[in-house]
Amino acid sequence: MGPWALDRVKAGEKTPLPATKVKTPLVELPLGATEDRICGTIDIEKALGQGIKAYEPGLLARANRGILYVDEVNLLDDGFVDVVLDAAAGGVNTVEREGISIRHPAKFIMIGSGNAAEGELRPQLLDRFGLSVDVRTMDDIKMRAAMVRDRMTYEADPLALCASVEAEQQQLRDKLDGATEALKNVQIPREVRLKISEMCSLLGVDGIRGDITTNRAAKALAALEGRPEVSLDDVKRVAGLCLNHRLRKDVLDVIDGGAKVALAWRRVTDPARAEREAKVAAEKAAAEVEKPKAGSWGGLPSAVPGGAPAAAPAKPGSWGGIPGR
Amino acid sequence: MGPWALDRVKAGEKTPLPATKVKTPLVELPLGATEDRICGTIDIEKALGQGIKAYEPGLLARANRGILYVDEVNLLDDGFVDVVLDAAAGGVNTVEREGISIRHPAKFIMIGSGNAAEGELRPQLLDRFGLSVDVRTMDDIKMRAAMVRDRMTYEADPLALCASVEAEQQQLRDKLDGATEALKNVQIPREVRLKISEMCSLLGVDGIRGDITTNRAAKALAALEGRPEVSLDDVKRVAGLCLNHRLRKDVLDVIDGGAKVALAWRRVTDPARAEREAKVAAEKAAAEVEKPKAGSWGGLPSAVPGGAPAAAPAKPGSWGGIPGR
Amino acid sequence: MGPWALDRVKAGEKTPLPATKVKTPLVELPLGATEDRICGTIDIEKALGQGIKAYEPGLLARANRGILYVDEVNLLDDGFVDVVLDAAAGGVNTVEREGISIRHPAKFIMIGSGNAAEGELRPQLLDRFGLSVDVRTMDDIKMRAAMVRDRMTYEADPLALCASVEAEQQQLRDKLDGATEALKNVQIPREVRLKISEMCSLLGVDGIRGDITTNRAAKALAALEGRPEVSLDDVKRVAGLCLNHRLRKDVLDVIDGGAKVALAWRRVTDPARAEREAKVAAEKAAAEVEKPKAGSWGGLPSAVPGGAPAAAPAKPGSWGGIPGR
Amino acid sequence: MGPWALDRVKAGEKTPLPATKVKTPLVELPLGATEDRICGTIDIEKALGQGIKAYEPGLLARANRGILYVDEVNLLDDGFVDVVLDAAAGGVNTVEREGISIRHPAKFIMIGSGNAAEGELRPQLLDRFGLSVDVRTMDDIKMRAAMVRDRMTYEADPLALCASVEAEQQQLRDKLDGATEALKNVQIPREVRLKISEMCSLLGVDGIRGDITTNRAAKALAALEGRPEVSLDDVKRVAGLCLNHRLRKDVLDVIDGGAKVALAWRRVTDPARAEREAKVAAEKAAAEVEKPKAGSWGGLPSAVPGGAPAAAPAKPGSWGGIPGR
Amino acid sequence: MGPWALDRVKAGEKTPLPATKVKTPLVELPLGATEDRICGTIDIEKALGQGIKAYEPGLLARANRGILYVDEVNLLDDGFVDVVLDAAAGGVNTVEREGISIRHPAKFIMIGSGNAAEGELRPQLLDRFGLSVDVRTMDDIKMRAAMVRDRMTYEADPLALCASVEAEQQQLRDKLDGATEALKNVQIPREVRLKISEMCSLLGVDGIRGDITTNRAAKALAALEGRPEVSLDDVKRVAGLCLNHRLRKDVLDVIDGGAKVALAWRRVTDPARAEREAKVAAEKAAAEVEKPKAGSWGGLPSAVPGGAPAAAPAKPGSWGGIPGR
Amino acid sequence: MGPWALDRVKAGEKTPLPATKVKTPLVELPLGATEDRICGTIDIEKALGQGIKAYEPGLLARANRGILYVDEVNLLDDGFVDVVLDAAAGGVNTVEREGISIRHPAKFIMIGSGNAAEGELRPQLLDRFGLSVDVRTMDDIKMRAAMVRDRMTYEADPLALCASVEAEQQQLRDKLDGATEALKNVQIPREVRLKISEMCSLLGVDGIRGDITTNRAAKALAALEGRPEVSLDDVKRVAGLCLNHRLRKDVLDVIDGGAKVALAWRRVTDPARAEREAKVAAEKAAAEVEKPKAGSWGGLPSAVPGGAPAAAPAKPGSWGGIPGR
Repeated sequence: MGPWALDRVKAGEKTPLPATKVKTPLVELPLGATEDRICGTIDIEKALGQGIKAYEPGLLARANRGILYVDEVNLLDDGFVDVVLDAAAGGVNTVEREGISIRHPAKFIMIGSGNAAEGELRPQLLDRFGLSVDVRTMDDIKMRAAMVRDRMTYEADPLALCASVEAEQQQLRDKLDGATEALKNVQIPREVRLKISEMCSLLGVDGIRGDITTNRAAKALAALEGRPEVSLDDVKRVAGLCLNHRLRKDVLDVIDGGAKVALAWRRVTDPARAEREAKVAAEKAAAEVEKPKAGSWGGLPSAVPGGAPAAAPAKPGSWGGIPGR
Repeated sequence: MGPWALDRVKAGEKTPLPATKVKTPLVELPLGATEDRICGTIDIEKALGQGIKAYEPGLLARANRGILYVDEVNLLDDGFVDVVLDAAAGGVNTVEREGISIRHPAKFIMIGSGNAAEGELRPQLLDRFGLSVDVRTMDDIKMRAAMVRDRMTYEADPLALCASVEAEQQQLRDKLDGATEALKNVQIPREVRLKISEMCSLLGVDGIRGDITTNRAAKALAALEGRPEVSLDDVKRVAGLCLNHRLRKDVLDVIDGGAKVALAWRRVTDPARAEREAKVAAEKAAAEVEKPKAGSWGGLPSAVPGGAPAAAPAKPGSWGGIPGR
Repeated sequence: MGPWALDRVKAGEKTPLPATKVKTPLVELPLGATEDRICGTIDIEKALGQGIKAYEPGLLARANRGILYVDEVNLLDDGFVDVVLDAAAGGVNTVEREGISIRHPAKFIMIGSGNAAEGELRPQLLDRFGLSVDVRTMDDIKMRAAMVRDRMTYEADPLALCASVEAEQQQLRDKLDGATEALKNVQIPREVRLKISEMCSLLGVDGIRGDITTNRAAKALAALEGRPEVSLDDVKRVAGLCLNHRLRKDVLDVIDGGAKVALAWRRVTDPARAEREAKVAAEKAAAEVEKPKAGSWGGLPSAVPGGAPAAAPAKPGSWGGIPGR
Repeated sequence: MGPWALDRVKAGEKTPLPATKVKTPLVELPLGATEDRICGTIDIEKALGQGIKAYEPGLLARANRGILYVDEVNLLDDGFVDVVLDAAAGGVNTVEREGISIRHPAKFIMIGSGNAAEGELRPQLLDRFGLSVDVRTMDDIKMRAAMVRDRMTYEADPLALCASVEAEQQQLRDKLDGATEALKNVQIPREVRLKISEMCSLLGVDGIRGDITTNRAAKALAALEGRPEVSLDDVKRVAGLCLNHRLRKDVLDVIDGGAKVALAWRRVTDPARAEREAKVAAEKAAAEVEKPKAGSWGGLPSAVPGGAPAAAPAKPGSWGGIPGR
Repeated sequence: MGPWALDRVKAGEKTPLPATKVKTPLVELPLGATEDRICGTIDIEKALGQGIKAYEPGLLARANRGILYVDEVNLLDDGFVDVVLDAAAGGVNTVEREGISIRHPAKFIMIGSGNAAEGELRPQLLDRFGLSVDVRTMDDIKMRAAMVRDRMTYEADPLALCASVEAEQQQLRDKLDGATEALKNVQIPREVRLKISEMCSLLGVDGIRGDITTNRAAKALAALEGRPEVSLDDVKRVAGLCLNHRLRKDVLDVIDGGAKVALAWRRVTDPARAEREAKVAAEKAAAEVEKPKAGSWGGLPSAVPGGAPAAAPAKPGSWGGIPGR
Repeated sequence: MGPWALDRVKAGEKTPLPATKVKTPLVELPLGATEDRICGTIDIEKALGQGIKAYEPGLLARANRGILYVDEVNLLDDGFVDVVLDAAAGGVNTVEREGISIRHPAKFIMIGSGNAAEGELRPQLLDRFGLSVDVRTMDDIKMRAAMVRDRMTYEADPLALCASVEAEQQQLRDKLDGATEALKNVQIPREVRLKISEMCSLLGVDGIRGDITTNRAAKALAALEGRPEVSLDDVKRVAGLCLNHRLRKDVLDVIDGGAKVALAWRRVTDPARAEREAKVAAEKAAAEVEKPKAGSWGGLPSAVPGGAPAAAPAKPGSWGGIPGR
């Protein structure tokens, strides 16, 4: 409940308050945005014309109850990321400047994207994102060619392409609506919650934001698949998304974040197997260091990428939904 | 007594002046705040509209007789920290700019938090904070899981959770009010004061701010626990909070601030035992250097953190109130 | 269709809408341009005079349906390049500042030139250019002398020179108009599209922008030469223009981008021959390292450049149109 | 005599002009002060309201015939220190900006304090301060405890503490007033002046500011103690205060400034003894280098600081008034 | 023909248009000039007073059909040099800012001077200057003394000195006017043009600006000396001025730019002799490296500079007009 | 003659124009001066009040026909030094900004002082100062003591001290006035001028500013001492002042600028003796390098500085007027 609605309830209005359905707003925060545009500011026109201080809402106000998308979030000023994350966390934006003091609801989901090679967020900010996904280029030639064809079809006639996938889209929307409804009744057993916290502690994650996010994501997955209770398997499937970006990177580390999370989970749920795997992983990693670096040009790899070496992960990270059981 | 009240007393008003009870203000100083917002400035509206220079109070004025909270205080401009600490120390804020010369009471408790890994305050500023607490992530899995459950309960129904802990909160408020009342009658014997100054001198603390703070904190602890006189044990329990952050860090130092303060206290109060302990500590520290660094990834620690190695301090610094006797 | 036309269609107007022919605009973006000039801003005169916020279009609006030329694009602020490329990609420019929120069509072809020795674009920006050409100074003395003569003739009487080449220019314009018309009917067989994606995957190009651009460029070449279907040879002739600038540079690499693209194409279309050539290229490159660097002054090369050493590429990169079969 | 008074005398007024007694102003120059606030500026209100250029005095004008205190003077912009020192030296502040040209008397004593570890003034500025004192933390535990007690007494009832020391304060004020009166009649014999200049020359002090300050300080000491003529002993007692900060620091120097001044004085007044002492000092200094550095943590010093090693100066620099004979 | 004249011709006016003789303007661009002053800007007075946007011409407009002189051109902002060179090359200055869009003729000769030791232009800018001259201090004592005498005579009576050289000046002006008239009829044979391009290609000059400038300069020299056709000797005499500054400097190069140009020309026109000379030059250069550097102080050179060592170039670079045959 | 006077003469007024005697202005350029204050700017009051652009003169205008003094000239922005030196050289200041274009006479003598240890001027600026003097602290104790006495006498009664030296001052003024009058009739023989240029050439001074200054200074000295013709001895006495600062410093140089100038002069006027001296100087310099550096603290020098070692120059550079014959 935002502060304005809360005021009305406190003032004695019957709940639920009358409601209006609006389209979920999708607001994009451009790279060069100023603090004024993000948080809102004084309306200059009114200030000059009528001599009053009127507040003019910013992007955070517009994104209320919707989605705020920030491309190249890693290139955005740390201070702005801070302001946006604060609002996203508290659901409220406070503007205090030049004698104005305003609080308005700013409850939104923030989505950021960026190329980590161009600069990283401070670890303290990165840690405040709930989930993270590592997106890479597909290696599968047929899928590439299909995407190229789709894109060229879209460019030739955008409306036709959209129409052809409408049914599939609607199905997805319905599934998400159902899951949102079901979420409030999903239970997460105490032993599952203890396993999550054990894993987070084992990984040395700072604070308990990782614990909370993993609990929530596991519940959301159960809801999406129509199950009333979170299982250990749900946790296993979401743990990487929730925790990978919370692990401090050590330059000498040969095991990447994803592998560490998986290993920690197995150690928590199946200690014996984990012990064996840790041994194997360490040996493989040591061997890896000897091999030539993939990025350097040492002649082209063999012509058929389908015959990719067994050691390399197939489709390394292209987002294909939450991994199945 | 603030300057305005003082003027009225000087003008002959009977004391005590009539008083009004207001809620203690809790003001947050945001990271991007300007000096204008902190100290107050000219009211532009009035300046343009009526041609007069009216003062518009800033955050320091609003925080008067309350609490000023600064998150990420270590990222705040040193100059601003200076201004805020000056006001906190003197209880008065002086604004002198563009022909305005105003002094107003600004008596508040300043609380700052921050991640020292992101940058430290100048030692000269750090030294002006009274007490410091080093907060770390809990290792206890059951407590983590309980906190996660509480947080999720809160998110589902904030008012219900608040109601469920109200009695406990009220009890704490009453205890604090009682201690505030009792504080003015708490005595601190001369030999205790001498021991405090001896410890501070031994630690090479600059100036006597450390001595004063330790005296005050020990008195507050006695008041909180309902005792009329400060004991040596009170000093022992607060010394770390008062002095840890006042010790200059030496990069080659293997003993941390807390251990130094404890050692100094024992040397002052029980020289023989201190001598023995110093020896042991030095040996243990030398051995520590040989061990692998905890943060580097050398396989996961054994699965049950409850079985933590004896040498490591249990719950390393999570704030659990003032240590008991 | 721009948003304004789309509104009219949605409002029920018959298609096609009435059309007016205007000259294709050619807009130059100067090096010192501000964001205001590029994107447009508030009309100050109207704002002050009439008290209203009127939008004053910028260079992007002027370039709509035309060409935007940016000299020394590598010296332009990365943020501006970003804004311009975003508009070029989406065909729409969004202006949001000081309470204005305007979207206008900005569909243009962007052409940038620059001297890479003076600074390079971020790889992420470079990758968003469709085609790239590497221009060098001609070595052919007769062509140089002819160009000098033409330039001096032009300076003496510009109009006369323009008149003398008008027929040739018109022929070129007609050919381009015809190809634009024919383009929509050019087909690109599935096996060609698969070969393109295989080559791009082999080269490790990030994302599928390279695939899309190569498809388009091959279709344009077929259209220009009046053929109804794209052949493998069309791809071979445009691959370098489309992909050279998308390859990450490795400082130790002795094979340049163009050679890599050609090698990758042959490996995809004629694996046996590619194998042999890769061997030869590597040997030649190794030998190259031993030779004295061309730029250092070690006496002048032999007097007749026409007798250039066989190893050096004749006319190394001067743009002479798309290479013939 | 300030320029305004001078004008009146020149205009024929009888001297002495009528005088008014005002309290000596004590003005503090805050760290963030701008040049406007220091020197004065145009009164904006009058400029906008009445269209005239009125001068609005700054801190230097307010400090006239009083004291200007600058905390953390070493962190102040060098340019501002320059302006303030120029005014202090000449007794006049000249403001020339935006068509204003004003000179007003600015005769004040400047007192600066700072922590040299945070940054030093340019030697050229340091050299323009008259006297310097090096303040350190007291080692005497009883004095520390007494100061803590006094401070806490003050905080409990400020007026009461001030009343309790009023008599002592008044005595000091009377003594200073008497000395000020007596100063004009104090004589300094030629042989004393020659010894001062000989010492300054021996120390390689730049310019003759050191000579002048030492002459003045010695006279002031004689006046304070009620003697009509400066003795060699007066010079000896003030030489360190006047000259320590004027010696260029050499990083390899093992003898500190104070010891050098004392040594130079003895060489000037008692060459034979100086010769012997120089030898001893050099030997002691060489030995010092071998000893462990005091600041490093090598276990705590022995528990009773009262038993401080004989070689170390007791109370190293805490200001206890001018050293007695 | 400037754009305004062109408009009139297009509008049907008879050519030649009526003409007015004005003195050739000589405009100096000061080092601290802003872009506003260089390119022109809005007339603020008119903007505020009459509410219209009037263009106020800058230095480029004032320099039209004249000379623009930039002292210390190497210290000028690269961006400004760019703007000025663009205008000089195109003869037109385009101003686009704050809603103004103006083009005006700006056809001028730009002359820049500077001390290369204080900083160099970017090679890309340097290359856009037509001719360059390297000016050094004269060694001839009699000429120095004569110049000193002339300067002192000028200072004593400027008008008298100017009068005494007026005839000589007028003769020079007449000669230049005649050459300007004759220039349009000077021919440059094809074989000469080919030799120029061969030389430029041999020297590795970027682009063909060097070729064009050498053609023009050789024609100007022929015109100045009253000959109707350019000879190979004309090219030889101007080649250094046209090409020296276009050669990339290699720090290890022992042969300076002038020598390279001369050598290249001889290789193009007399290959056999060039071969012999290259050998000698290389040997001399190698020997040079062994000799003590002239700038270091190793005692003064022998007293009579007239007896300068044979190896050193007499009058090394002082500008004495174009070298004779 | 300034431009305004010139206009009047050209307009036909009889010469000499009527003249008024004014006191020679002495203007000080403060360190923080802006370009506005130096060159003059628009009068804001008039601009706002009356809507006209009136020029408000700056410091250069005020210094016309007087002296401009710049303390710490080495800390002044290079650009400002440039502007001031340009005006000093040309006697005219040109102001071109915001539509104003004004030239006014600015004929003044510029005097700069500074501490070279705090930063040096660019060699190109240093070279434009006419004469330079190196000022050091006096070693003579009696003179120091006398100066201290005089200063303290002045502080006690400024007017009295000034009165006591008035006669001496007037004598000096009369001598200078006489010399100024005589200067125009002083002759400098051709052989003297040749010797000056020979010396400058020998020293490798850039340009002929050194030659001109030496000629002028020698004439001024002859005029001051009442002689009608410059002698070689006059040149010898002023050469150091004119040329020392024009010699490029070589860090390895053991002979300072003054010695070089003297040596060059003797080589020009007495080659045989110069040869012998150069040998001795080189040997002495080599020996010097072995000696301990004077600034390092290696015990105090022997007590009586009057007994200074013979090798050191007595009174090393304190300005005592032009050296006698």
